[in-house]
Amino acid sequence: MEYKRVSEEDIRFIQKIVSEDRISQGISNLNLHSVDQSHHKPSLPELVIWPIEEEEVSKIVSYANERLIPVTAWGAGTSLEGNSIPVYGGIVLDFSMMNKILQIREEDFQADVQPGVIYQDLNHKLRHKGLFFPPDPGARASIGGMIGNNASGIRSIRYGSTRENVLRLKVVLANGQIIEVGKNTQKSSSGYDLLRLFVGSEGTLGIVVEATVRLRGIPEYFSACLASFRDIYSASEAVFQIIKAGLEPTCLEIMDSRCVEVVNRINGLNLRQLHTLIIEFDGSSKEAVKDSVDICEQICRELKCEEFISGVERDEYKRIIDARHLLGESMRKYHPARVHTVTDVAVPISKFPELILFSEGLTKNIKVPAYIFGHAGEGNLHLAFMVKEQDAEEWKLVDEIKDRVTDMAIELGGTCTGEHGVGIGKRKYMKKEHGNSLFWMKKIKELFDPNGILNPAKIFP
Amino acid sequence: MEYKRVSEEDIRFIQKIVSEDRISQGISNLNLHSVDQSHHKPSLPELVIWPIEEEEVSKIVSYANERLIPVTAWGAGTSLEGNSIPVYGGIVLDFSMMNKILQIREEDFQADVQPGVIYQDLNHKLRHKGLFFPPDPGARASIGGMIGNNASGIRSIRYGSTRENVLRLKVVLANGQIIEVGKNTQKSSSGYDLLRLFVGSEGTLGIVVEATVRLRGIPEYFSACLASFRDIYSASEAVFQIIKAGLEPTCLEIMDSRCVEVVNRINGLNLRQLHTLIIEFDGSSKEAVKDSVDICEQICRELKCEEFISGVERDEYKRIIDARHLLGESMRKYHPARVHTVTDVAVPISKFPELILFSEGLTKNIKVPAYIFGHAGEGNLHLAFMVKEQDAEEWKLVDEIKDRVTDMAIELGGTCTGEHGVGIGKRKYMKKEHGNSLFWMKKIKELFDPNGILNPAKIFP
Repeated sequence: MEYKRVSEEDIRFIQKIVSEDRISQGISNLNLHSVDQSHHKPSLPELVIWPIEEEEVSKIVSYANERLIPVTAWGAGTSLEGNSIPVYGGIVLDFSMMNKILQIREEDFQADVQPGVIYQDLNHKLRHKGLFFPPDPGARASIGGMIGNNASGIRSIRYGSTRENVLRLKVVLANGQIIEVGKNTQKSSSGYDLLRLFVGSEGTLGIVVEATVRLRGIPEYFSACLASFRDIYSASEAVFQIIKAGLEPTCLEIMDSRCVEVVNRINGLNLRQLHTLIIEFDGSSKEAVKDSVDICEQICRELKCEEFISGVERDEYKRIIDARHLLGESMRKYHPARVHTVTDVAVPISKFPELILFSEGLTKNIKVPAYIFGHAGEGNLHLAFMVKEQDAEEWKLVDEIKDRVTDMAIELGGTCTGEHGVGIGKRKYMKKEHGNSLFWMKKIKELFDPNGILNPAKIFP
Repeated sequence: MEYKRVSEEDIRFIQKIVSEDRISQGISNLNLHSVDQSHHKPSLPELVIWPIEEEEVSKIVSYANERLIPVTAWGAGTSLEGNSIPVYGGIVLDFSMMNKILQIREEDFQADVQPGVIYQDLNHKLRHKGLFFPPDPGARASIGGMIGNNASGIRSIRYGSTRENVLRLKVVLANGQIIEVGKNTQKSSSGYDLLRLFVGSEGTLGIVVEATVRLRGIPEYFSACLASFRDIYSASEAVFQIIKAGLEPTCLEIMDSRCVEVVNRINGLNLRQLHTLIIEFDGSSKEAVKDSVDICEQICRELKCEEFISGVERDEYKRIIDARHLLGESMRKYHPARVHTVTDVAVPISKFPELILFSEGLTKNIKVPAYIFGHAGEGNLHLAFMVKEQDAEEWKLVDEIKDRVTDMAIELGGTCTGEHGVGIGKRKYMKKEHGNSLFWMKKIKELFDPNGILNPAKIFP
């Protein structure tokens, strides 16, 4: 695709749509929108615009479509796979000023939000109503970005990914048309499911300008546990056995001993430096929560866990979860001269121990710092590396391991990305994972965005 | 679209693909595949084929596509909106011989099935493993048909519709290509969600030849209750209050007193002839279930229910649920000279009482027998009528009421169909419900089925 550069004439046109203080060509603003939290190569946009109304978005996108200028939507820049990097320059639409919570309908467990709302801010506002929006990717992500990447996190094992927690979207298409998809009802069989087509499409099919999200009640009772193991395979086997037993944890995370070392040092925790499961149960009954914890403890002890701590205090647990959320950041602090890169594969839960064993085997004796962690209860494994930026040999080794682990996950019936999205880094796995259905994804892209202006160079190899 | 009739030459070609005993032009077979369980006008196919392998389906569809012969997939014929009626004749593919349960992976809570598997048969086989496939439309539906219509039922309030319980599909496209969509993992952010696009597309985008479905554990504890009310508005208000309180029933059904009269007479039940809520809670803890029942009872009593019966015995409850499932059939038996027609609207739960009141107002004093029931906890209302087939005046009245209720539901932020699909009967509401996004649904249809051979005359007005 041949794109046009943003010209003086384009800027004059856009100035008629958006007030001047919400348009920038300043280098610091361009820099801020050139890279997300990934290791991918930065690429400068030519223009950053902060829309405040859907009509502005519509007019800008429609104009850009005619002029063949790329448009990339920007939430909070917290993506991990280059998903929001403006690879071909053009316009970045930064949604941080479209951050209103439009309506909370607690009686329907729904909220209408603009895409720039940070999900923690929504949850903060909901707290005193006893409600929350469950997807929890950790970083201060915008809900628009979460929709783009179908983000999830530690609670998705219980409440699903963003896809399962969005009911309705208002979307600006490449031609500038504004459409609504989905319904404010719990169920519908009315026509094709365009809603879930847009969720996870990484801004390549349309740009979300409003969303109705699903809320849940904050459970009354809660219990958090830590189980530490000397060998990581047993830890992963415990994960499988917990799920197989039919337990429904709200959180079931794995961190290898190296991750524990990082959070102890950087986040001031005091965990035993062993392979650790973080486990949480909640519910409306104290007994049910206790029963789950008991079964869980039994499983871990049978697998020779070194220690099982139940009844972790709420404050302590919050510190642990916060540290878990900050793990990527903490690794960066721990290895200041190195760059972070991470896999995001997911497999059927019965294959998780095999995947863990394979990953450990590949990383055990390498000189690059490597970390195994993830949303274990969903079979979602993050294998992170801290690489010397200029060291081609290290990159070669790491890329090879990442490829092997991802290939293995796909062969086990899994996916190259459980929650980070494809972005730039996972395009190369798409053919292997999707076979001939990738062709139909491309066709859908061409249908909605024939000029390819929306977030180009993403998803497709 | 101009379709071709099935010629002698076509039959000779098809006989090379499928053995003779699995092809029929016999009038009784054509008749059996001319109408579903709806009141819509029967339309004969020209040919019925019973495939047993996906390659047969691929070859037949590919041939029909070249020859412009319509192909309609047929599960068990239990749809309620004409979804599987071969309006333009052509070929019906009856999947009743592709009814193998291919694999049960209890460790991953998954099963691979062919589309002709009847969901009760799968659940029967799963029972001794303590697992089940949750969507529960009632009739002896095939899983392929359930996927086509995104079917659901009394348990979807807790476990979601078919869409939430399918992980992976193998689909034959109009050009004969076989693609796989979705993954055997609990989550994925890899590319566009084609899986959910096919679920609920009523066989108009492709034909499902294999599915991986999600299984759940059968909960340990259970409690069923009945709440009877003198006025239906209070009953519907109780529904709203139960959901608003954050309770999570496994079943929350409403039947008006006229429905109760039918199930008492036809199914030999002995319920008080009042507006009745059927409520079920289950879970892994006896206390949690009991707590939910207690709160529920309090809500119903505050709304002046006439009677609240908790702890309904399992056998008695099964009889009630069976009768609820058979309600449409029982109405037909109760009014043998009349024809059954039914709405399937759904609204946000806070609007449910308003919708009930509106529906009751419209049907109270009419001479056509009318029944109000539905999956109340999801805001899903069925308003059923038993109409004299030849009485144009009755049809006019009933159609008008159905239109008004559906318009009202859409205006309340709802949908024209919660679970039956669009089929023939709801095409007229699509423009109002979807606005300009209907155009994009059509474009997707044209993309996957440019010749329009797959189940023509459905979904689109």
